[in-house]
Amino acid sequence: MRTGIATVCLSGTLKEKMQACATAGFDGIEIFEQDLVTSSLGPEEIRAMAADLGLHLDLYQPFRDFDSVPEELLAANLRRAEAKFRLMSRLGMDTILVCSNVATASIDDDDLRAAQLSRLASLAGEHGVKVAYEALAWGRYVNDYEHAHRLVERVDHPNLGTCLDSFHILSRDWDTAPIEALNPDKIFFVQVADAPKLSMDVLSWSRHYRVFPGEGQFKLAKFMGHVVRAGYSGPVSLEVFNDVFRQSDVERTAVDAMRSLIWLEEQSAQWLDAHYSVDEAGEAAEAVSEAAGRRRHPMELATLPRVAEPAGFNFAEVRAADPGALETLLGQLGFAFNGRHRTKNVQLWTMGHARVIINEEAPAAAETAISAIGFDVDSPVVAAARAQQLKAPAVPRKSQANEEIFQGFAAPDSTEVFLCQGSPDGTAAWVDEFGTPGGPGSGAGSQAAGAPQALIDHVNLAQPWQHFDEAVLFYTSALALEPQPYAEVASPTGLVRSQVMTTRDRGVRLVLNLAPLLQQEGGPEAAPPGAAPRRTYQEHIAFAVNDLVATARAARNRGLEFLRIPANYYEDLDARFDLDPAFLSTLRELNLLYDRDADGEFLHFYTATVGSVFFEMVERRGSYDGYGAPNAPVRHAVQYDHLHQLKLTA
Amino acid sequence: MRTGIATVCLSGTLKEKMQACATAGFDGIEIFEQDLVTSSLGPEEIRAMAADLGLHLDLYQPFRDFDSVPEELLAANLRRAEAKFRLMSRLGMDTILVCSNVATASIDDDDLRAAQLSRLASLAGEHGVKVAYEALAWGRYVNDYEHAHRLVERVDHPNLGTCLDSFHILSRDWDTAPIEALNPDKIFFVQVADAPKLSMDVLSWSRHYRVFPGEGQFKLAKFMGHVVRAGYSGPVSLEVFNDVFRQSDVERTAVDAMRSLIWLEEQSAQWLDAHYSVDEAGEAAEAVSEAAGRRRHPMELATLPRVAEPAGFNFAEVRAADPGALETLLGQLGFAFNGRHRTKNVQLWTMGHARVIINEEAPAAAETAISAIGFDVDSPVVAAARAQQLKAPAVPRKSQANEEIFQGFAAPDSTEVFLCQGSPDGTAAWVDEFGTPGGPGSGAGSQAAGAPQALIDHVNLAQPWQHFDEAVLFYTSALALEPQPYAEVASPTGLVRSQVMTTRDRGVRLVLNLAPLLQQEGGPEAAPPGAAPRRTYQEHIAFAVNDLVATARAARNRGLEFLRIPANYYEDLDARFDLDPAFLSTLRELNLLYDRDADGEFLHFYTATVGSVFFEMVERRGSYDGYGAPNAPVRHAVQYDHLHQLKLTA
Repeated sequence: MRTGIATVCLSGTLKEKMQACATAGFDGIEIFEQDLVTSSLGPEEIRAMAADLGLHLDLYQPFRDFDSVPEELLAANLRRAEAKFRLMSRLGMDTILVCSNVATASIDDDDLRAAQLSRLASLAGEHGVKVAYEALAWGRYVNDYEHAHRLVERVDHPNLGTCLDSFHILSRDWDTAPIEALNPDKIFFVQVADAPKLSMDVLSWSRHYRVFPGEGQFKLAKFMGHVVRAGYSGPVSLEVFNDVFRQSDVERTAVDAMRSLIWLEEQSAQWLDAHYSVDEAGEAAEAVSEAAGRRRHPMELATLPRVAEPAGFNFAEVRAADPGALETLLGQLGFAFNGRHRTKNVQLWTMGHARVIINEEAPAAAETAISAIGFDVDSPVVAAARAQQLKAPAVPRKSQANEEIFQGFAAPDSTEVFLCQGSPDGTAAWVDEFGTPGGPGSGAGSQAAGAPQALIDHVNLAQPWQHFDEAVLFYTSALALEPQPYAEVASPTGLVRSQVMTTRDRGVRLVLNLAPLLQQEGGPEAAPPGAAPRRTYQEHIAFAVNDLVATARAARNRGLEFLRIPANYYEDLDARFDLDPAFLSTLRELNLLYDRDADGEFLHFYTATVGSVFFEMVERRGSYDGYGAPNAPVRHAVQYDHLHQLKLTA
Repeated sequence: MRTGIATVCLSGTLKEKMQACATAGFDGIEIFEQDLVTSSLGPEEIRAMAADLGLHLDLYQPFRDFDSVPEELLAANLRRAEAKFRLMSRLGMDTILVCSNVATASIDDDDLRAAQLSRLASLAGEHGVKVAYEALAWGRYVNDYEHAHRLVERVDHPNLGTCLDSFHILSRDWDTAPIEALNPDKIFFVQVADAPKLSMDVLSWSRHYRVFPGEGQFKLAKFMGHVVRAGYSGPVSLEVFNDVFRQSDVERTAVDAMRSLIWLEEQSAQWLDAHYSVDEAGEAAEAVSEAAGRRRHPMELATLPRVAEPAGFNFAEVRAADPGALETLLGQLGFAFNGRHRTKNVQLWTMGHARVIINEEAPAAAETAISAIGFDVDSPVVAAARAQQLKAPAVPRKSQANEEIFQGFAAPDSTEVFLCQGSPDGTAAWVDEFGTPGGPGSGAGSQAAGAPQALIDHVNLAQPWQHFDEAVLFYTSALALEPQPYAEVASPTGLVRSQVMTTRDRGVRLVLNLAPLLQQEGGPEAAPPGAAPRRTYQEHIAFAVNDLVATARAARNRGLEFLRIPANYYEDLDARFDLDPAFLSTLRELNLLYDRDADGEFLHFYTATVGSVFFEMVERRGSYDGYGAPNAPVRHAVQYDHLHQLKLTA
């Protein structure tokens, strides 16, 4: 598949955009007119730079408001077009995007439109230019790709074709199956964009909220499947208007964009496999080759190393320059100290299959924070190869002979993600590398009396606002996690946006939180002079146990500092759920939180925070599949209050 | 008018919110349930604190999903309600908001609804509670305030009334005139919120984008006028869900909120004046007093000192620790040095009626920035009294005897706004305080040869994202500027949102720019290690002249460094406008930008940037009323490129 991207997707100058696109590995780019007009590089310089960078200049865009106009305006439009055709010749470009008219269309007449497009095609032909006519979703008269294609077929000029843009088609819910019936010789260009399903006017949606494939909710693999079956073999090019991407680091965004196309290519191939049985596939292949007879190269879809979804969490790692407070907390929760690693400055703590590594290899000033997550996968080598092909940045770990080598990658929020060999019984072979004494008092191998079996239920990571969508695609593509419906939680410093990513069997649950801006970037509330750190958001690891009440009692007996839940909460809980008084009193006594829905019940509690990390213990009853979302505002408020008290006394 | 605000409008804990509301001067508050549930303060403590702060606890809210349900669910709902009634008694509160059912309504039957509301009212009566029933805009069966009122009238129970919420009424475009016919005894509460006109689903619009009155586009003065004529005299309370306010400093937001009610009160009184002639007003007064016969106090609407819109800019001030580069720039533009102030460390530069003060009283490390704007008003004393009543923070300037005293206020972005005595001929008396020599070479009183007449055309200020809406209300209420339609401009670091505020006669044009976040808060692009300042956005002052080409030529002859416009821009300009080749060549030669619309033409150029400030010279031909918006991306791109070059060579 030939990959492309429109320069409007990225931040920076045209030069910076082109360099980033080349570095990310795109085959070509679309030149967005505004990027050219505002550039200090002349057309010949741009052409030369593209050649040096190995970038094909696929498409010049947009040319607006051409068709469906009175004759005198048409003359001006043709003059305007010719100026652009001359410019394109200096750029060495041969295809221009012409959008259906929005602003100046005044005559709704397909005969007239065809005649006008025919004159444009003739003019383009004289300049060696091909016109790709696109139906904008909000075009005045032409807003449906089939209508645009009918006009093109009717004009039947070798210099006039259509451009198919997934946003303009899927935002209007047009059926994509008829794409297969389009004449592939008349499809001059294909643009792809994803988007979250938003109920707003389609123009605002398009101009601000498009995302890269895999970051939204459009059925793009199906769209691309139909495009492939139509016999199209040209560039598949990203055109994504997004307020955040326009502000983000250009090189990272270009890599994120490239990852989305690599992933889309694989998904499209899988969609084709899944939707055409052997016989049908035979037929389909025939259809394609028939179309391909008219084109030279039918589109080839590259595939990636395939992985199953991870079976679970292998471990979570917290980095701490001074591990004392963490050791105390884990010990009080009932974790056993399993000793230090034989060559690295790390400790292992376990409760059942829940493994927590304390990594002391941190700069002295570093805040205690979640630094890494290990996932159980079938084959770490294959999974790592896949991640690498998806351009995940590798983070190699030093290992001695005979030690397990983890394949690792940096997630968009810079958490390190490790791919570990899963085992059917939930154990991990590398645990044997630990056992060197020298840790806290309890001694190697010991486990607090009566410690329950446990596993990591979920990990909750705070995401920088510039990299939230990137993170969704990273976990979707590299780890086969699936985004769940999105939630918002009120906190004293603003709404926290929460995106749960899970495997289908819920063996892995990852929560990506988008903290309010002031928590991320600092500001008057977040950073009083010389006091608290700029980043005041918190992250956590949640462990599931079978008997939360017993776990909480044992932890209390060991002196655990619970996050203290306000009395008002329990009154409201009672008003909502009409709980058994004895049960309610247990909840209140132990600072437990409670939720219930049609599927089951959820009990949980939180610990105090160390650095930016705290822990949660949960018990799922029945088929409860949530995270106690109604209780999250309570947690945020109490944590805020606590932080605030710390500041006032600091 | 009794003023109120819902705690959900603000950031922080319940305690912080209450303190901020008391400080801002609210009469009462609505307790949003989540703020209570998450609070460590018990109901009795909250009650005592409110009493200490002089805050009335007006409304407990929300109670959701009560009506239109089967009997078994009704029983649970009544139980749930009773728990809240008991809680309210501990809080000392007597009114609760009950919203029309969204989630669990399953029976659309007004008989049943009336019967269910009647049972709720009876139960409330037993607890001394009044139920204010509100039609949510997205209520399943009840989403129209008249429907809610009909149900209340039908039940006719002293403990059941309605709540009118401007958002739920105006977002649905319900006619507000029928409010006058409602029974005032049955209007238990009135909530107000403004909103920008957005075409999106009403629930998302409501939960994220409400703003305080005067910050959006709803006709709230009319709404309130009808409410007053209905005979309502209870609290007028803000209920504004806004993603930004939830993150902003609680005390500032509370003051912004209070300002919005003070302004709304005045606007409502003016609306009533304007829409009822003497006779009608007599009748209206009668109608009100008839209604008021049933209530004790008809609503009194306080008024503010009234001011006309400012006639123009009196001056603009730039603060600079080292004024050398500014002096050079102004001199090259054709400004004359008018000497130093006789007692302050400031210089005056003028070109015709355009006056620029260079204020050298800046900390050595301070970046050169726009620090103050003076507006010509009829009566500075009256205008200052008005601003003070609108809670604008005063910034007194030290003055010696016989010097003009400026009344000044800090705008939300901390620019100082001064109210100056306007003169019919555009001169300013305080200019005589200048004249002490000691400035740059040109000498006091001299003006560069052939300097054109000029005035300040517009000032463009960058706004912090947390205070953008606040700024709109500040200039609307304190200075009678009017917001114009909102625009967005692409820049290499993201979209810049631009809100023009003007007087009706365009004597004052102020542009509030909301810069992309990374420009505001720093980030990888904005702040490479140890290099550029965190804030990379720029602000400017634009001067209007009669002959821009002559001005530009003269400036070039004096050696002015123009912002250099790319050649590509002129080719595109020619393609768009088909310009006379000689004119185009003049534009290109002088780095002038050009725009044209149905009303006229616009020529302009920009200078290089000093600190965060640059200047623009403009010529308006015909009735051109814009700012060359199509050219703004060019300016942003060239400035970015320039900044980037500086960084690379730094």
